[in-house]
Amino acid sequence: MKPPLRVGVAGLGTVGAGTLQLLERQADLLAARAGRRIVVTAVSARERRRDRGVDLSAVRWYEDAAALAADPEVDVVVELIGGADGIARAVVETALARNKHVVTANKALMARHGTGLARAAEAAGVTLAFEASVAGGIPVIKTLREGLAGNRLSRLYGILNGTSNYILTTMRDSGREFGEVLAEAQKLGYAEADPSFDIDGVDAAHKLAILASAAFGRPVDIDGVYTEGIRHVSRLDIVFADELGYRIKLLGIARLTEHGLEQRVHPCMVSKAAPIATVDGVFNAVVAEGDFVGQVVLQGRGAGAFPTASAVAADLVDIAAGRSVPPFGVPAAELQPLDGAPMDRHQGAYYIRLMVVDQPGVIADVSAALRDQQVSLESMIQRGRAPGEAVPVVLTTHATVEAAMQRALAAIGRLGTVLEPPRMIRIEDF
Amino acid sequence: MKPPLRVGVAGLGTVGAGTLQLLERQADLLAARAGRRIVVTAVSARERRRDRGVDLSAVRWYEDAAALAADPEVDVVVELIGGADGIARAVVETALARNKHVVTANKALMARHGTGLARAAEAAGVTLAFEASVAGGIPVIKTLREGLAGNRLSRLYGILNGTSNYILTTMRDSGREFGEVLAEAQKLGYAEADPSFDIDGVDAAHKLAILASAAFGRPVDIDGVYTEGIRHVSRLDIVFADELGYRIKLLGIARLTEHGLEQRVHPCMVSKAAPIATVDGVFNAVVAEGDFVGQVVLQGRGAGAFPTASAVAADLVDIAAGRSVPPFGVPAAELQPLDGAPMDRHQGAYYIRLMVVDQPGVIADVSAALRDQQVSLESMIQRGRAPGEAVPVVLTTHATVEAAMQRALAAIGRLGTVLEPPRMIRIEDF
Repeated sequence: MKPPLRVGVAGLGTVGAGTLQLLERQADLLAARAGRRIVVTAVSARERRRDRGVDLSAVRWYEDAAALAADPEVDVVVELIGGADGIARAVVETALARNKHVVTANKALMARHGTGLARAAEAAGVTLAFEASVAGGIPVIKTLREGLAGNRLSRLYGILNGTSNYILTTMRDSGREFGEVLAEAQKLGYAEADPSFDIDGVDAAHKLAILASAAFGRPVDIDGVYTEGIRHVSRLDIVFADELGYRIKLLGIARLTEHGLEQRVHPCMVSKAAPIATVDGVFNAVVAEGDFVGQVVLQGRGAGAFPTASAVAADLVDIAAGRSVPPFGVPAAELQPLDGAPMDRHQGAYYIRLMVVDQPGVIADVSAALRDQQVSLESMIQRGRAPGEAVPVVLTTHATVEAAMQRALAAIGRLGTVLEPPRMIRIEDF
Repeated sequence: MKPPLRVGVAGLGTVGAGTLQLLERQADLLAARAGRRIVVTAVSARERRRDRGVDLSAVRWYEDAAALAADPEVDVVVELIGGADGIARAVVETALARNKHVVTANKALMARHGTGLARAAEAAGVTLAFEASVAGGIPVIKTLREGLAGNRLSRLYGILNGTSNYILTTMRDSGREFGEVLAEAQKLGYAEADPSFDIDGVDAAHKLAILASAAFGRPVDIDGVYTEGIRHVSRLDIVFADELGYRIKLLGIARLTEHGLEQRVHPCMVSKAAPIATVDGVFNAVVAEGDFVGQVVLQGRGAGAFPTASAVAADLVDIAAGRSVPPFGVPAAELQPLDGAPMDRHQGAYYIRLMVVDQPGVIADVSAALRDQQVSLESMIQRGRAPGEAVPVVLTTHATVEAAMQRALAAIGRLGTVLEPPRMIRIEDF
């Protein structure tokens, strides 16, 4: 058997501890699969005494993670610190500069600096692996780069943030409002004290940018991702969605259009019959549409120490066995820059919810505002009557251009009988 | 760039033609991903003049597929002939003996002779790849061997036969009986003239045996697969399943038990809330349960020329790029033989449907037969009354041992008031 693969783990938070536990408990299994042992020889973390559930007495400790990345007795650096810049970036750049393989779970880093890091890894002749950065233990990067290598993808979409999906699922199941469910999720530890990263779509945008690169062979373009979160989704929207045959999901969607690569994260209405509509709670799912394979759906736990450790371990086994893939599927020099398709030119159907005064003529005014922008109505629901008071009205449109829709919404918002800013959710055709 | 990978394709039926089309249409994409071109240099087929949708004028033709396998100008032999023995087996054995890589879509061959062929490939230092043999274009073999390499799996199950799933889905949607739906499926080309291979579970058993090997690191044991098809599933069962909160699916299930490796293919009642319950029509799905990753679900088209060609292409890209994995995840010498768990000792809950004479005392007799075998009833449904005539009665049990259940069913079948052989469908707990 070949000599062991020597691993340095930078960052021993929950994912780091989970990874150490996996590497210890599955050591024989990993050795059988990789053809050599995978051994942790060095770690770095600020707090040395905390119990990580494994014996670290024989392992070299570093206060400074960048020093670990330079350790000549380390073949692979596993970066589990997080953050787009700062120490995490220094660790990865140091490791690559020393011709060491890198495995990272850091989606912010890959979304911001992925293309440059891929170039550095190629120049050094080492592997840069990041399966753990997207969708936890679901092997979605491997599937896009290898399993579907024979396909040109037309579209890729997914539920990429478990916290948002949990909140939307719980709102539907319990009939409660967003704020209440979020507060409960925070209490249960499913959402952070500062939940913005999850519920405003930032986390999903990072993951989408990485996936879009691997799927379409483009440089990572996080700034090209249109991003909208779930704060404005209300209980009422969920009820109306159900009535219209939809579920509301926060999706990341990437596709090639005549205007360039479209990348967007926002709440979507999806048909209850679509596979992704039934992915509930903290689960993630990714759907890839290829010209030969058709639709492939992958689903599983998108976060958590052990699922993430599972992805890190898979990357380590590939490295130990000598299997290497360019980070984004093709050599970095062959990644084709492509204009981002502006959101203005997005085409799709729309759901609009208005709070209006229940009086004659309101629907006529709203309809006229849509007509003025050539937006064609598909359906209208007004439940209940309360003359002179506020009632919700829901409209759905046929496919139209986003810019026209936005102009129509602005005009509708200016109507005296419309009491709140109109709410709009895009309807996706899966 | 490295010299091209020279491919010989044995068998030019629909999958063979689809593969040639993919390799031609995606040639540049594949070259970018593999780091070298993948070029078809030889083919074999009986009928030379048929149009395969690609220009084959510059390619060497063989009447004899085994001669193609021996062609020194071929680096990889793609076997798309089919069948566990005969010419397909000869082609694969010849290729391996000549130190050529093999890519095959042949599930019967891999299920019958997979372990031996894996040994031969290892001895020759070449790759034996068979992603296309299971679940069409869904990269399930890659996921089990590589993506989930850090996990011990506890259970693996899936919808592995699209024809059976289409028939069960259509029976549910249309309310029609098995025979009628089968006849229609045959007319539409979704089922073969001799449908036994699909509807009796043989095809699913082949695929399950292959998956179980890759998942659990055991020699392939097709004879250890308990196999039961869908011929006896009736419209009534589907109606009762719905009422009880279940869907009926033909599943292949493998799991490690205290009695050994359990491998079984049979109709199952699964909760409507389980991800696999919503996989309808010709789609396939595989669910793997790992100790670190939790549950991972893969879903997509399980058959067809293009999805299968997608899997063949992925294997070819791996070979062209120099990425190799032992056929069943670990070296053949390390595959651990394990007794098959006898079906008698299977434990689970059961659904039973009886046609009984509607008269007092029948349920008491049936209940007594179950009690005599220590089988505990969970629910009983008898809809409608027709004194003195035949009515269906449905029972569900708590978890019990298969042998006890079979004895109880035999006793129930002997009751004078029970008019047809009892129908039993196992309830799976997902």
